[in-house]
Amino acid sequence: MKDVIAETIDAILSEVNAISLPGPGYTRPSYSPLESEAHRVIERRAGALGLTVSRDAGMNLFARLPGRDRTAPALFVGSHLDTVPMGGAYDGAAGVAGAMALAAAFVERGETPPVDLVVTVTRAEESTWFPVSYIGSRAALARLKPEEFEARRSDTGRTLAEHMRDEGGDPEAVLRGPGLAPAQFVEIHIEQGPILDTAGEPFALVEAIRGGVRYRNAQIHGVWAHSGGAPREGRADAVFAFADLVTAMDRIWGGELSSGRDLAVTFGRVDAASGEHAFAKVPGELGFCVDMRSNDDAELDRALSLFHEACETVARARGVHFDLGALSRSRPAVLSEGLIGRIAEGAARLGMGPRLMVSGGGHDTAAFRQAGWEAMMVFIRNWDGSHNPREGMNPADLAEAVRALAASWGDPQGRA
Amino acid sequence: MKDVIAETIDAILSEVNAISLPGPGYTRPSYSPLESEAHRVIERRAGALGLTVSRDAGMNLFARLPGRDRTAPALFVGSHLDTVPMGGAYDGAAGVAGAMALAAAFVERGETPPVDLVVTVTRAEESTWFPVSYIGSRAALARLKPEEFEARRSDTGRTLAEHMRDEGGDPEAVLRGPGLAPAQFVEIHIEQGPILDTAGEPFALVEAIRGGVRYRNAQIHGVWAHSGGAPREGRADAVFAFADLVTAMDRIWGGELSSGRDLAVTFGRVDAASGEHAFAKVPGELGFCVDMRSNDDAELDRALSLFHEACETVARARGVHFDLGALSRSRPAVLSEGLIGRIAEGAARLGMGPRLMVSGGGHDTAAFRQAGWEAMMVFIRNWDGSHNPREGMNPADLAEAVRALAASWGDPQGRA
Repeated sequence: MKDVIAETIDAILSEVNAISLPGPGYTRPSYSPLESEAHRVIERRAGALGLTVSRDAGMNLFARLPGRDRTAPALFVGSHLDTVPMGGAYDGAAGVAGAMALAAAFVERGETPPVDLVVTVTRAEESTWFPVSYIGSRAALARLKPEEFEARRSDTGRTLAEHMRDEGGDPEAVLRGPGLAPAQFVEIHIEQGPILDTAGEPFALVEAIRGGVRYRNAQIHGVWAHSGGAPREGRADAVFAFADLVTAMDRIWGGELSSGRDLAVTFGRVDAASGEHAFAKVPGELGFCVDMRSNDDAELDRALSLFHEACETVARARGVHFDLGALSRSRPAVLSEGLIGRIAEGAARLGMGPRLMVSGGGHDTAAFRQAGWEAMMVFIRNWDGSHNPREGMNPADLAEAVRALAASWGDPQGRA
Repeated sequence: MKDVIAETIDAILSEVNAISLPGPGYTRPSYSPLESEAHRVIERRAGALGLTVSRDAGMNLFARLPGRDRTAPALFVGSHLDTVPMGGAYDGAAGVAGAMALAAAFVERGETPPVDLVVTVTRAEESTWFPVSYIGSRAALARLKPEEFEARRSDTGRTLAEHMRDEGGDPEAVLRGPGLAPAQFVEIHIEQGPILDTAGEPFALVEAIRGGVRYRNAQIHGVWAHSGGAPREGRADAVFAFADLVTAMDRIWGGELSSGRDLAVTFGRVDAASGEHAFAKVPGELGFCVDMRSNDDAELDRALSLFHEACETVARARGVHFDLGALSRSRPAVLSEGLIGRIAEGAARLGMGPRLMVSGGGHDTAAFRQAGWEAMMVFIRNWDGSHNPREGMNPADLAEAVRALAASWGDPQGRA
């Protein structure tokens, strides 16, 4: 028997990833012509499967396979097709390929799902482009705020509203809503961490998604001086100040984990590399970003407050001044036990026992959950992390997860 | 009486600083057409004073006022006219202006100095452009090594040999030598530190120059990962590793000073700001430079060894790999007591009592001293450090130092 799941996964990954800015890795900016072109790949293939394709005002794509009960809340399955700059082949694309494979499996065996199955391709999930979380899904849910449309894309400096219009969207219609009524959403996604790979497990069910607080454009202002002539005592060295801050946050992070709290701290970008920086100068300026994540919103408040205290301590000790810039925040989400249980049962019927785990990365699923949907995620084992050109995934692991989903909603034997 | 010293200083500073790449600050790269144009300012003004102008194969400029004893070792006085990128108005230029003012004072009062007075304008003193120390003075002394001509300028990527030829120089002739015979060199320079400004003293006599060791292009290789998905334990975060290294060197630096050793440690450039760096990624790469200075060559060895140990410790603890790149080094120099004593006496005759101090920055004087010259420096009070657009100096302080030099070699009344 032809393995339509594996074939669909391979075909979609290869077609989508042929669309990218020059490498290394894959780059499809949010609301770019490249992202739109990747959406058209899904439109063509979904059309060929006989699904009904539509787009909302935010240019999210929905490809619908009618279910037996057309009035029951539909099952949306999917992910996104934008990438971070120089990202990998699977973050986003794997979930869309998995959703299409699930639909193809139903079509292949001529089976009607119990409710409408909607392959879902969101827009602008990677917030490195616009400093706004979950843009596409929140557009679909009519939960974007007017001021968020003024956020500027990091590469072009143009607003979200402008880029959305360029790709055929209608910001005013997004704001008017009403947005999708609550239904069910399952997002398939690579893990982006080493836990499944280390454990040797092909996929997992996600029970919570970490939220995050981040300063994307923080600055330390010190005092420029000559590297040989300025005595140690009088220096206001922005790099030593930054090192103190990182070291303090490292201690705090370790302490929070030891106390059983969930936290991750990352300084993803450090810039003391302008034309004015040189080996013979005490650096007077340093830019950085910081990202703190937790599955507990109260812990985010706590981490933020400890971070602010650390900045104050460093500022006093080093004679520097911090300008943290704007704070952005995404809230943690506890996912739906009902959906998780249904998929655990479907998987069990095929002899699989996926673990429950927490997602460190933020995902559209959080936005659906916060809008009152039943929502959960399926994580696929991967290696070399994600958001980099080297991220790895075995398509057979994704196929196994898709078979578990097929078993959960379709043929109890999961024959697809 | 017209103050020829003050007038000469003002005129030369303003003419030289009119020559620069666009601001902020002043930029005249080593062996650039701009540096050559600044040299031509001195050529014109020296010619107008009746001095004899010559250039050596390295395109250093010498403007000679004959002395009473033409066979005695001449007194070379001067500094350089190149700047760091976006440097200040005085680092280098003040010393050249002071030397021209000294010559103008002799000419103005019709007095012949005891030995030839040679206004000296060296090339390429700022080693941010080529990773080689004291290029111009070592060219004049025939102490450059063949391989140093292959060093590439940081902005153009072209070699020292190419740039020297572009400005009219002859690398082969520099290598053939024989170079200048040992004589006397006095370099006038801004302090580049806050000591004189804090003490309220206009100038000082420098008794030693710190040497330095530096890695200009060091790299930390970690592992890229997702900022939310990668557990703390498995991370190889290049930024946390760098912070550990800076913190370790901060401790070491403090310890060395407490033990009475002379050391300064600066990380002047940190680059984790490529297109691949983003807030949602654990950074897998970081570039930095480190500069360690001391007036004691043995302390430089010790600091280097402590630095290497710190790198190893960090590499083990953080799972990262260091690639330090090429090491460059300049040796500390103890300056000439005879010259220092002579100027101290000249100053004392005018009622001045300049302090003795150490230079944190490296200077051409070190190269002359190492070539067996009698050599010393005069430091001028300045503020806001140097190597930045804000460096400040009162020309009246420079004029006071020039009067002390005039008194040391000329009219015992220092009337100039």
